[in-house]
Parts: sequence; structure tokens; C-alpha cells
Amino acid sequence: MKKVTQKYSLPKKSVYFFSANETDGHAGLKNILGGKGANLAEMTSLKLPVPPGFTISTEVCDVFYKNSEVLPEPIKADILMSLKKIESLLGKKFGADKNPLFVSIRSGARVSMPGMMDTVLNLGLNEKTLQGLIEESGNERFAWDSYRRFMQMYSNVVMGMNTSFLDIILEDLKDEKGYEQDNDLSVEDLKNLTKKYKSEILQSTSKVFPEDPMEQLWGAINAVFKSWNTSRAVTYRQLNSISSQWGTAVNVQSMVFGNKGNDCATGVAFTRNPSNGEKHFYGEFLLNAQGEDVVAGIRTPQPITKSEAAKMGQVSLEESMPGPFKQLVEVYKKLEAHYKDMQDIEFTIEKEKLWMLQTRTGKRTAKAALKIACDMLDEGLIDEDEALLRIEPQSLDQLLHPCLDPKAERTLLTKGLPASPGAAMGKIVFSSEDAVRLESDNVKTILVRVETSPEDIEGMVSSEGILTTRGGMTSHAAVVARGMGKSCVAGCDEADVDYSKKQMRIKGYVLNEGDIITLDGSTGEVFLGEVKTIKASLDDNFSRIMLLADKARTLKVRANSDTPHDAEVARNFGAEGIGLCRTEHMFFGADRIDVMREMIMSDSEEERNEALDRLQPMQKQDFLGLFTAMKGLPVTIRLLDPPLHEFLPHTEQEAIDLSKRLSWNLESLKLKVKSLHEFNPMLGHRGCRLAITHPEIYKMQALAIAEAAVELIKQGDPLVPEIMIPLVAVDEELRVLKQVVVGAVESVQASTGVKFDYLVGTMIELPRAALTADKIAVHADFFSFGTNDLTQTTLGVSRDDSARFLSTYVAEGIFSEDPFQSIDQNGVGHLVKTAVELGRKAKSNIKLGICGEHGGDPKSIEFFHLAGLDYISCSPYRVPIARLAAAQASVRQRKEREH
Amino acid sequence: MKKVTQKYSLPKKSVYFFSANETDGHAGLKNILGGKGANLAEMTSLKLPVPPGFTISTEVCDVFYKNSEVLPEPIKADILMSLKKIESLLGKKFGADKNPLFVSIRSGARVSMPGMMDTVLNLGLNEKTLQGLIEESGNERFAWDSYRRFMQMYSNVVMGMNTSFLDIILEDLKDEKGYEQDNDLSVEDLKNLTKKYKSEILQSTSKVFPEDPMEQLWGAINAVFKSWNTSRAVTYRQLNSISSQWGTAVNVQSMVFGNKGNDCATGVAFTRNPSNGEKHFYGEFLLNAQGEDVVAGIRTPQPITKSEAAKMGQVSLEESMPGPFKQLVEVYKKLEAHYKDMQDIEFTIEKEKLWMLQTRTGKRTAKAALKIACDMLDEGLIDEDEALLRIEPQSLDQLLHPCLDPKAERTLLTKGLPASPGAAMGKIVFSSEDAVRLESDNVKTILVRVETSPEDIEGMVSSEGILTTRGGMTSHAAVVARGMGKSCVAGCDEADVDYSKKQMRIKGYVLNEGDIITLDGSTGEVFLGEVKTIKASLDDNFSRIMLLADKARTLKVRANSDTPHDAEVARNFGAEGIGLCRTEHMFFGADRIDVMREMIMSDSEEERNEALDRLQPMQKQDFLGLFTAMKGLPVTIRLLDPPLHEFLPHTEQEAIDLSKRLSWNLESLKLKVKSLHEFNPMLGHRGCRLAITHPEIYKMQALAIAEAAVELIKQGDPLVPEIMIPLVAVDEELRVLKQVVVGAVESVQASTGVKFDYLVGTMIELPRAALTADKIAVHADFFSFGTNDLTQTTLGVSRDDSARFLSTYVAEGIFSEDPFQSIDQNGVGHLVKTAVELGRKAKSNIKLGICGEHGGDPKSIEFFHLAGLDYISCSPYRVPIARLAAAQASVRQRKEREH
Repeated sequence: MKKVTQKYSLPKKSVYFFSANETDGHAGLKNILGGKGANLAEMTSLKLPVPPGFTISTEVCDVFYKNSEVLPEPIKADILMSLKKIESLLGKKFGADKNPLFVSIRSGARVSMPGMMDTVLNLGLNEKTLQGLIEESGNERFAWDSYRRFMQMYSNVVMGMNTSFLDIILEDLKDEKGYEQDNDLSVEDLKNLTKKYKSEILQSTSKVFPEDPMEQLWGAINAVFKSWNTSRAVTYRQLNSISSQWGTAVNVQSMVFGNKGNDCATGVAFTRNPSNGEKHFYGEFLLNAQGEDVVAGIRTPQPITKSEAAKMGQVSLEESMPGPFKQLVEVYKKLEAHYKDMQDIEFTIEKEKLWMLQTRTGKRTAKAALKIACDMLDEGLIDEDEALLRIEPQSLDQLLHPCLDPKAERTLLTKGLPASPGAAMGKIVFSSEDAVRLESDNVKTILVRVETSPEDIEGMVSSEGILTTRGGMTSHAAVVARGMGKSCVAGCDEADVDYSKKQMRIKGYVLNEGDIITLDGSTGEVFLGEVKTIKASLDDNFSRIMLLADKARTLKVRANSDTPHDAEVARNFGAEGIGLCRTEHMFFGADRIDVMREMIMSDSEEERNEALDRLQPMQKQDFLGLFTAMKGLPVTIRLLDPPLHEFLPHTEQEAIDLSKRLSWNLESLKLKVKSLHEFNPMLGHRGCRLAITHPEIYKMQALAIAEAAVELIKQGDPLVPEIMIPLVAVDEELRVLKQVVVGAVESVQASTGVKFDYLVGTMIELPRAALTADKIAVHADFFSFGTNDLTQTTLGVSRDDSARFLSTYVAEGIFSEDPFQSIDQNGVGHLVKTAVELGRKAKSNIKLGICGEHGGDPKSIEFFHLAGLDYISCSPYRVPIARLAAAQASVRQRKEREH
Repeated sequence: MKKVTQKYSLPKKSVYFFSANETDGHAGLKNILGGKGANLAEMTSLKLPVPPGFTISTEVCDVFYKNSEVLPEPIKADILMSLKKIESLLGKKFGADKNPLFVSIRSGARVSMPGMMDTVLNLGLNEKTLQGLIEESGNERFAWDSYRRFMQMYSNVVMGMNTSFLDIILEDLKDEKGYEQDNDLSVEDLKNLTKKYKSEILQSTSKVFPEDPMEQLWGAINAVFKSWNTSRAVTYRQLNSISSQWGTAVNVQSMVFGNKGNDCATGVAFTRNPSNGEKHFYGEFLLNAQGEDVVAGIRTPQPITKSEAAKMGQVSLEESMPGPFKQLVEVYKKLEAHYKDMQDIEFTIEKEKLWMLQTRTGKRTAKAALKIACDMLDEGLIDEDEALLRIEPQSLDQLLHPCLDPKAERTLLTKGLPASPGAAMGKIVFSSEDAVRLESDNVKTILVRVETSPEDIEGMVSSEGILTTRGGMTSHAAVVARGMGKSCVAGCDEADVDYSKKQMRIKGYVLNEGDIITLDGSTGEVFLGEVKTIKASLDDNFSRIMLLADKARTLKVRANSDTPHDAEVARNFGAEGIGLCRTEHMFFGADRIDVMREMIMSDSEEERNEALDRLQPMQKQDFLGLFTAMKGLPVTIRLLDPPLHEFLPHTEQEAIDLSKRLSWNLESLKLKVKSLHEFNPMLGHRGCRLAITHPEIYKMQALAIAEAAVELIKQGDPLVPEIMIPLVAVDEELRVLKQVVVGAVESVQASTGVKFDYLVGTMIELPRAALTADKIAVHADFFSFGTNDLTQTTLGVSRDDSARFLSTYVAEGIFSEDPFQSIDQNGVGHLVKTAVELGRKAKSNIKLGICGEHGGDPKSIEFFHLAGLDYISCSPYRVPIARLAAAQASVRQRKEREH
């Protein structure tokens, strides 16, 4: 939305009125009225006490921008009409010196959104109407206090003035007089204050503080609309995938005053406890105060209920104002029964009379969400479907990983990508070896690397968390850390790492090896020193919701695991199999890597086979471990995928060390490294291409799988291994390599006399494979969508190099989301759907799954559910999230169909 | 085809008979009868003298392999039936001692194919039938000579014996007796010889030479079928995109003997001169000889016509056998009138009677092809369409580039990819600088690099040819060399380059700087030392065919050119515009590169703009030159595409030199190089992504284009620049950047007051762009398919790294062709078709072209024509090829529709 006049048409209805007599809106109109406006209308219809007012719709916001940020006259006329209605309802007049009407102005988008203009109270006050207010209330101090408050709010949110200027004046005055609280200010003080305010405002903004109530009104309404596009709001929208087209509504409501005396109050409350979910009314209030005071921290609010207040030795609203408290209890019960969800409410009590100013679904912790859902299910308020939909799948991360103590102090160093959730603290190390070494001394470390590679696996295991300066959400570090359930912040591009100095620079800070940092992998934040954390914990509500989810979902959930340990974690989290075991990680163990290198360095097939013969029993052990851990659940094993150069030394020094250690000729080692170098390894000699040129590698792996299977089957453990061939582009690749695999398996079956079922399938991770999936399906028992590589190739974006521009892309809305986090439905998703359709057409019983990182993303999971896949596979710690997301997708689809 | 019995069904008809009385086949049945069999049948139907025989169809070949390389009994029965028919027609009997029948066995696939078994003559001869032949011919020597020949051929092609063993025996005998020629052998000699042959065959093959004529027959037939899968045949098929499924036919024909006496002869002839196309009968013959003698070089054949023979002081067939010569002239005229094309014929004269053994379309040079097509058009034999179809587009390369003198001696060093046609000779240099330096001393050089980058451009200009050890048909070296019309052999992976030693090793050879090599860019061959070349030349027939092509084609043909010189070359070759000007090459000039680097090193937008301001007038000059060279024809300019690190130093030493030269801080230069490093640059921060993060770069380029256009338009030269934005994945990228471009152009139009039309379009080179082309078309005046990158991403294959496995892929038939040479129609082509459809649906008048390297490949051109593109763009030297290929595509489509 830029300041250029475009064509627009006026909305059919611009302004929605609400009052006890007449209400245009209802809760269903959130898109047009915003959350706040819709709920004000709904509460009005419920006959709850709501001061009358009106909502200027979000459609007007669109018109406002298209009309160069000016409200068209017909809409202004509608607004004035509604204002008149309030006047006649209340018998007051806006801007009048007798019995004047005052209003509050509040923004309200479809979803709650920080960064926008929030509230202007007491609008309409000026030197003249002030007199009317004094007259009407008989409370001069109250009226001047309200005026002072109005000036502060208006100058800040409408005139764009820095609040601190007026705050300083107020504080100076209080210091001068020796006052503790704002309430200590006398009428004279307040009169002086407003004068000083006026001159300060003029000086700071070069504008006279508007006396004309109508000018105040238009100014505030325009300010709300403009606040839709403040940079904070824009950023928030981008971070939360909120469309910039939605716009905000403006709520104009007649004022009720909580600051009129000690029979007045204002407060906020939750219908249940938002941090643990317990079923009790929970909130805070302030006597003789206005809305903002409760949250502003100027005075400490008191608990509403007697039981809570007692704990803190304070006086509750229940005790001090039993009448209004009773009204409030009735209201909150009514609201929860009506909305069937925990509500977050705002209220004001004016002269012992309760007024409701807002209700909305209350935010809650994951723990609370689970408890509330289970309780409401037991109370019969909601059904199982609804209970499932009440929990944000992503929020379960809070329960699965340690997280930062919200109260702990912290110094933010920088922010990277939230690559793998959980908090972690430790001393910085810059190499895998150092992490391993320090672990043996029981020193906690954070492994800092530009980017990790499979060689860093042991260091990743040994460290508490990983920080990388390159790479995105699906970079090696991110993928592996998620697999391990280990905290990882990736792509910290503000950090500069110097391996030679063992130093990391972040903005002004220079951090040396051994310095302590704390990562929050759930937010991507990196903190200096130690920040206190809270341990992960699961409870019965979690288990209950997981069981409900399993009942509701049709998508199976598997895990990506490469080790027996990860496999066990995954199974404990409810994984129904392994969807991806990456065999390359198995070759990086200290006992294997040199044999692997010998294999690569071999000049002849004989030498190569000799090395493979030594690897085979090790591979067999790997698979035995994995199969055993999964206790007969399906296990999909991906045959070797990365290019061979990944296993060779990357630097001159590493080459020298290796050649010394193994007494290899340095020159031929370097020649081999050089000859295997690739310009674009992602598109290079890897995956099934390796096996087309060196079929003996896949043959060895297939033999090891078959031998492991035979050993278990002989022990009476049934299992059906699934062997997966990666990076297929052409059906012929799969046909040829399937022969290799089948030949190997059959040879083991023949020599052992043990027959067993097994599947041979392929990854669909290249556009060409998706487009010709019908031909590929002929040779495949299953497809597993490798959406990481499919995203890289379909979009032509290297995940390891994209950090440099993807953030700009998301910030400028070119991509609505990072396509490596949530699947690009129109591009990559289109190919997935094409392949599903072609694959099933060619082979109706083909098994379809996805093992890319998108398998752990709730939005992507919904997409895969709708695309008709049989299963998703994600990192072990995402399994619970995936189970819930899959269940929600089922429930939503069912509800959609029932409509 | 592996030796595994599969299911098969017998063909409806396995054996096709041909004789003066009864002929089952005709020329239209080439797929079933093979070329040889179909034409034998056709000649028989034309009542030409053809010895009766039969063809075992190619369908039998398929059955043969499916049946574990055994002929099924019913087919054997059919063959025996046909043999009986010949016997009764000729009154002879196969294997009889009286009046025996002898046959020849020849292979014959759909297309002529070296590497398969060729011919066995005189089959049926043994000690017994030999007596019959003596009796029938009254010529004992002839009979024994035929037997000797038969043993030589059969032992070799059927029994797999090395011919040299028998040759040695023959030569020893001749030496012993002091004979010059085989004809000097006496009956006794021949008798002895056959005895020695038999024992040698037994010793070498451990098999008795078969006496039983039926065993001989089945052996020979099986050998023909088996020869379909010899490694030479397999290789040939792969190199020439011949399906392994086609199979070969077997021709069994009654023998006529050209070696029965001096009233007998055998010969081969062309109905027109195959090397220059002149219209005269042209051929060679040998008196008293059998088929193979003519080509075997044992005796020197003589010219057939008197005029040719006179030049060489020899006696022609015309003179020595005027009767058969007259028959031959009648036959060749009849054949050419019937086939309406130059024929390559084989004949035998037995006792003054002419027998035709083969006719086929004659191979010819490009020069001859053009002349024959033009002459036949003038003669009314063929129409314009047919004339166009007669010329293999690719063959025009012979006329456009110097080529190796076919007679010149040569020592092959290695073979790489035929990346850019033409022959080139020069001293090896290993750096661009050396090539430039030596050129100034008039020394011809061949630039040898592992792979070239844009920095090598000047060296490529200065050298005669380029050899790279990496990279494929669309690598930088290949693309740029083709653009320059310069010979290039790429991806020579047998060569190992050591820059530090200025040395290249190829197998045993060590070549140092200054050593001479010769490249044949049309075949990919690299020769040691100098090999003589023939200059390129074009003639009137070429021009005439090009004009016919322009009349026939609907596809426009443009060229990819970056410099005024290339543009002029392209225009002279008939390019109708520039389809791709890669602006990055403009920044590598000595005067630009440092300014470009300053721009990249800038820390602020101001500094960057300052550098861009200095580049802008240089860019303007570039575009002025290009527009001027193209004289108002459309010019498509692609805005900056490669990642910025390509412009920075690649090695430590280069960085040190640069930092010294420009007095830059070495550390910050190295830091910048490091920070711009990419793991997969092909999928990195390049193309429009650069401009999303640094819009000022495209703005500068658009300003320069607009200023150049204004300057020319002011001079009265009309032009419509086409501005192209590369690497778009999402419509939003194009929308945003189009605004940048339009803003820049409009600012120039406003400041100069000169309005002009211009187009803004995009490359479609990512799968996502193709899949969402409808959305992208909204913002595009044109699409240009970048099929190089589209191939890389769709197949997930890096062109620079693919050499290592693509050759195996093509050799094993996993890809039928190198997808970077000829478009992968099912994968990449599918996306092209999708984008054409979606693009036109969204914007019916959108201009559609292709500027990938496939634009110069005839097969791909046909695909693009059928896909409905408006134009193709290729390197300048491929423009004539493209014009002809486009014309052929039109003609074929028209013919297809008329059917």
C-alpha cells in the first residue's frame, strides 16, 4: 500500500454501530470489524454492559490507502451519523461544554497485532469540554487528570511525539513536590502540567495541540489507519504471515471512566489461568485508574479474587467491590459459556457499575492450552475435534525442549534463524574436536561454525547447541540439530567467525573460545553469557491430546533418524516408523571414515570392492541397531546420497594430516580431492548418479540391509525394510538400480534361505521426477518426497546460500514465507500434487510419503494431508507436533466437507 | 537386451521374399526390413536385375533376444521355406553336390550402422558343394578362390576369429611363391590354403569349420543378430541416438559371382559426385573380383566412366565392358528418377550380366548436399520443401568453419566434447594473459584451462581455439566459443592441467607451454602437433538454400551476441535480431572490471551509486555499439545475471595483486570475497535476486539502455529495445523489478523529451517460473526460455559438473542424449510447453522465444517450433543451421498436417 491514489469503490457499509438497542455486527464479522469490534458487537448482543459505539470497518482501511490516506467524504458522513446516534442514546454531545460526550479510539485488526496504534482515551477533551466534565462529575481533579492523560496519549500516538518528553515534565513535577504517585497530583498541579504539556508539544512537533474535538477525532481515526503500516506492524505481519491487505478497523466508543473516584476501577482478567490452565478466574485491577495504568506499571495492580489476593497480602476486588465483582463473575461465566474458550477481558467500573471494553480468546502457554482443552472437553464445553484445534502444534516445542526462563535477565547479541528449538548455554568452541574434548571434561559447549558438514556430527553430539553464520532452516546444521533435538541458531549473518583466531565478532562484541553464550533455538536469539532456563516437561494432558490426535488423523507420522538412539526417541514420541535414515552419517564414525576414504581413493573396482567389503559388516550393524530400535515398524533407508568429496579432507592441512596418518601419497590425495571438486555439489555427482557410475556402493548397502533383516527375522522379529534410491530424475535410473538392489537382496535370501518382503522406492526430489512420476512409479513401491531438494531445484535456490537474500525476500513480501520452512504451495506443492496424481494413476497402491524438513511444519502438513499422502516424516522432536498438525488437518478437512 | 528369456509373441510375418516374380516388401518397410532389405525389394519391384532372396525382419531380431538368442522353430521353418523358393526359382539346391545354391548373408538395420556384422559371401560352400560349383562353372580356380574367401569371411564374422591369422598364412604363401596379387594363386595353392585355414581355425577357435551348409546358414544368421549388440554397434547407436530397440534384419540372397572370370566384375558407384555434388556418374570397379575387394584395397579399383578413367590413365568399365556399362547407366538413371535422390549402389557383373546388390541414399559432403538439392530442384526432380529436407542442418558447420583436411596425418591425443565446431592449431598457453601477449607477437595459441570464466574472455578472443578439462556442452567456454565461432573442445577429462608447472598431461604425453596441438571442435578430437586444415567457404547454393529456408520457416531466428562484432557476424549470417545480450561480459573489459569491483566492495549505497555512475556511460557505449550493429533489428538485453563473486579475485595471489594495484585493504577484500562465497553459485545470489537486494544495478543498466536508445532515435534510427530480467521464480520479483526498469526508462524519456517503445520481459529458466507462467505473464511483454538453467534445475544437474557422469548416462542409454545438447523433451520440454500454454492464456500476444544453447540444435528447434515459440536465439555461427532447421520443422509439420 503506497501513497498513490488508485481506483476504489466505497464499501457497501463502512460503519457498524453497537449499543444495547441496535447492533450491526457480530463475532462472525471479524474480517470486516476486526477482532475487537466484532467482539464488542457480540457482547452487546449478549446484553452485556458495553458502552455504545461504532466500528469503522477494515474495508475503509483499504479505501483510505487507495485514496492517498484520506477518508472519502461519504464515509466521514457515516461516521458523523453514528456519532450522532451515540449522542442521542446517551443524551450527551461531542464537543459540547454542557454534558459533553467523550470517546475512546482503538485499532482492531482481524488478528491481534502489536505495533499498531493502540488506544486514545478521553478524546473530545479540551479547555471547554473539560468544564462540562467537571460539572457533570463534580470532580475537578478527575477531569484535569483525564485531560492530562488524553494529551499524553494523543500527542504520542496521533502526533507522533516521543512520550518521554512529557514523562520527564511529569516526573520533574512529582520530584519537585515530593509525590510518590500520579494520584498525589493536585488540581493545580494538573492545570500547570497541561500548560507545560501544550508548550512542549508545540516545541517538539511544531504543531498546536488540537482543541477542536472533531479535529481530534479525525486525527485519531487517521492515525489508527496509518499505524497499519508502521514498520513495526509491517515486520510483525511478515513474521506472522499476516496479509498486508487485511487492514485494520477503528473502534470509536463512548467513554466510561475508571478514574472518577474510589468507586471506580479498571482491570484485565482471564477466565482461566493462562500460564497453567487451571480453572479459576484470574486477573488484576486498579482502583480509581484508567485502562493503561494496569499494564503501564505505574501502580501495581491487585488480584481480583480473594484467594489470589490473600496469598500476596492484598485486597481483592471481590472484597473491596463485591457488587461489581459479582457482576464480573456473571459476565465471565456467560462469556466462556458463549465463546466456549478461555477469554481475556478488559473492564472498567464507573461508580460501581461494570462496563465491558473487550473480550478475546486468551493467549496461553502450551501447558495451559493442553489443560484447558482437556478440561473443557470434560466439562462438555467442546468436543474432541475442537479440543484438538485449540492447541497450536508449534507451541508443543515449549514442552519438548528446555526454554529460557521468561524472567531471566539477558543481553541480546544477535538474532539468526530459529533452526532447532530449545535453549542451550555453554562455552564457545569453533571445532568439532574441541567440543568432543571438552565434553569429556564435562564442560558444556556451544559449537560455532560458519556451516556444519557431516564431519561435524560428533562435535554436534558433544555440544549443547549449535550456532552457524550461514545456511538456512534446512541447512545441514539445522536438519541434524532438529534430528538430535538440540538447540540450533542458524544463518546468524551478523556474526563473523575467524577460525584461525578462534574468535567470533558480533557487532561490537568480540567473543573468544571459552566465552559463554546462550542460544534460544525457538526464536533464533543469541545472548551473551548465561541466561537461566526451565526444563522440558510433559504431562497427562499432553498424552491425552496426543491420543486424540492419533485417533483423528489419517496421515501416518514417521521420523527422520539415523541412529538407534534417535530412532528410540522418535518411537517414544509416537513415530510410526522411520521415513528417512540417511546412511551417509554412518560413514563419518571414527572407525569408518578412513575405510570410506580408501574406497573413494581406490583406483580399481577391485580395490573399491575390497574397501566396501570391510564397510559392509559395519553397515549391517548400523541397520541391525536401527531395526531393533524400531521393533518391526517400517524403516526407510536411503542409500548413499552426498557426493564423495564430502568424505575427503577440505583443507590443505587436513589433507596433510590424513596422508601422514594413513601413509598415503599426499599428491594423489590432493589430485583426487581436486578431481572430485564440484562447482555446484547440490547438482553434482551424487545420489543415484553415484550408483550408476559405481553400482558396487549400493550393492554393498543392499547386502548389509538384507543381512541385518535376515538376522532379525531368524530371531523371530518380523520386518519389512524399505530401500530408497535418492535423486532419481529419469525412470531408467531407478529401473537399473532397482535391479542392483533386488539382485543383492535376492542373493542374501538365496544364500541364507530366509525370504522376507521388502520395498524398493525412490525420492521424488527433482522437478523432472515429479513431472514424469507415472513412468518412475512403474519401478517404485513407494515415493518419498524430498521437498528440501525439490524446493532448491524448483525455485533454483541453494538453501546454503539463500540466507543472504531470503530475508529480504520475506521482508519485502516476495515470498510470503521462507520456502524452506513452509512449502511453497504454488510451485513446489504443484509438483508434489502432480507427482501424487501421476504416481497413483500408474500404480494405485503406491505408498506416498514426504521426508523433507517440511514434514515438521504444521502448515505444510496440512498441505500434504490434502494432497493425499500416506505419511509424513520429520525429525524426532517434531513428531508430537506433526501428530497434532496431521490431526488438525483431518479435522478441518472433515469440517470443511460437512459444510 | 540381456540374455534373459522374456515373453514374446511371434511377428505376423517373419520372412519377406523378393524375386522377379514375387516380392513381399517395398522401400516403405525400412523399419521392418532394414534399409538394405527394403531397397532390394524395391529394386526387384522396379524390375531391376536383383538375385532372388529374402529378408528376415527386424522383428525377428527382437524375438531372438527375448528368446535367449535362439531363433524359434516356426521362424526357422519360414526361413527354410523361403530358401526352398529360391531353389525352385533358380533350379539349384542349397548344399547339393550338383548345381548347388550359394547365398550371401548381410545385416541391414533401419539406418546404416557401422560395427555390425557386414557380409558373408559364398555361404553353402564345402568340400562337396565346391565340386558342384566347379562342375557348373567349369572354373576350378574360381571355385577354390570362392571357398578360400568364404572361409576367411565366415571364420571372422561368424566364428569371431581374428582375420590377421588367416591373412598371415595367405601373405606367407604369396611371399613364398613370389606372387604379387591374390589372383596369382593357382588351384593347388588355393587347395593348400584352405587346408591350412581349417587347421588354423581349429587351433584358434577350438571349433571345426562347419562343413554342413545348414549349420553355416544358422551360424551366419545368428551372427548377424548378435552383431546388433557388439560394443562398437552399441557405441555407434549411442553417439547417433539410434534406439537399441530397432534391431537389425538379415538378408539372405542367392549368390552371383564377380570373380568367375574376366567377363565378371564388381563395383560401387554414386549417381552423382558425393564430394562436390556434380552431376555425373561416379564409381569404381574391379574385374574378376568379389564385393569386398573394391573397398578392401587389395587391388586398386578403376573408374567406371571413360572421362574419369582418362584423367588417371586407366581403363574404364565403359570401355572394357560396354554392354554391362550401358545396363548400369540405365539402372542408375532409373534409380535416381525413382528415388529422386543421389544413390549409392553396389553391383556385380557375372558373365557380362549386371546384377544389383544394393542401393541406398548416398552420403555426401555439405557442399555436395547443397549442390545436389539445388540441381534436383532445377531438374524438377524435387520441390523446394524436399530440397530443404535434403540437407542435414548440422552439416553446414563444415562450410562455416575451417575443418581438418581429411587426408592429413594425425596423432590423436584425446577426445573431449565437440563444444564449438571448427579446426584450430596453435601453441598451448595456460592463461588468458599469455594468449593476449602472444597474439601481439602474431603467435597462434590454443588456450588450455580447467574451465573458463568471464575473466578469460580476452584470452579466448586472442587464441585460435580453447580446450577445457571440465564443463559440458553449455559450459562457459563452450557457450562463449560458439558465440565467437571459435573452435572449442570442452570437458577433456583425460587431460590433467597443472597451472603452476604450465603443463598438461594426457595419458602418456606431457605437453608444456608452447607445444603445438590441433583441435577439431566438430568432433571433440585433440591432436598432437599441427594437422592441416581446409578453409571455410560458402557458395551460391548455400545462399539459395538459406533463402528457401527463410521462405519456409515461421520461427524467427535471432543470435546470442554480446559485442558489436558478434552482432555483425550474426546479422551477416541472417540473424533477425539479438535474442540474448549477456551484459556481464561487458564488465570484464580492462577499463571496467575495477570499477565493477569498487561497486561490489562498496559499504554504502552512496559508494555503490558512485561506482555505478561511472559504469553507466560505459554501458551506454556498449548498447550504442550493439544497437548500431543490429540496424534497428530487435535487441534483447539481459540485465546482470552472475553472482557478484565472479567479478572478484578467485585466488589469494589475485587478491594480493588487486589490493596492491588499487591500494585496497587486503583484509577487507578477502573478507568480501569470503562473505560472497557460495556453495552452489548456480542456485545462489544472482539474476534478479541481485537486483531485489541491490536495485540500483538494474536501474543503472536500464538508464544506459534508454540513453543509448534516445541517442539513436534522435539520429533517426528507430529501435525497440527489449529489456530482460533473469532468474525470475515468482511473479512478484518481476513486478517489483519492472517498476525499477520502467522508472529508469521513463526518467530518461522525461528528461530528453524522446519517447520510444520498449519491452520488458523475463527469462523462464526455473521450474517454478514455468509452472506459474500465467502469473508472471501479467508483468511480462515477452518470455525467453533459458533452457540451460531450466535443464540444470529440472534435472538437478550442474552443467559444469556433469561431465563426470553424463557420458556414462548417455553410454548406458539412461539419457538418450546429452540434455544440454538436445532438449529433454519429456522433462524440460514439458515445462516449456506448460509455460507457453499458461503464458498465452494470460496474455495472448506475449512474445515467446528461447535463448538457451538448445536454440542451435536442430532437434530442439523442431521441438520449439511445434511448441509454438515465436523465435529461437543461438550463437552467431549456428544461425544458418537454425534457419535451415526451423525451415525443416515447418515443412515437416506442414507435411504431417497434409497427411
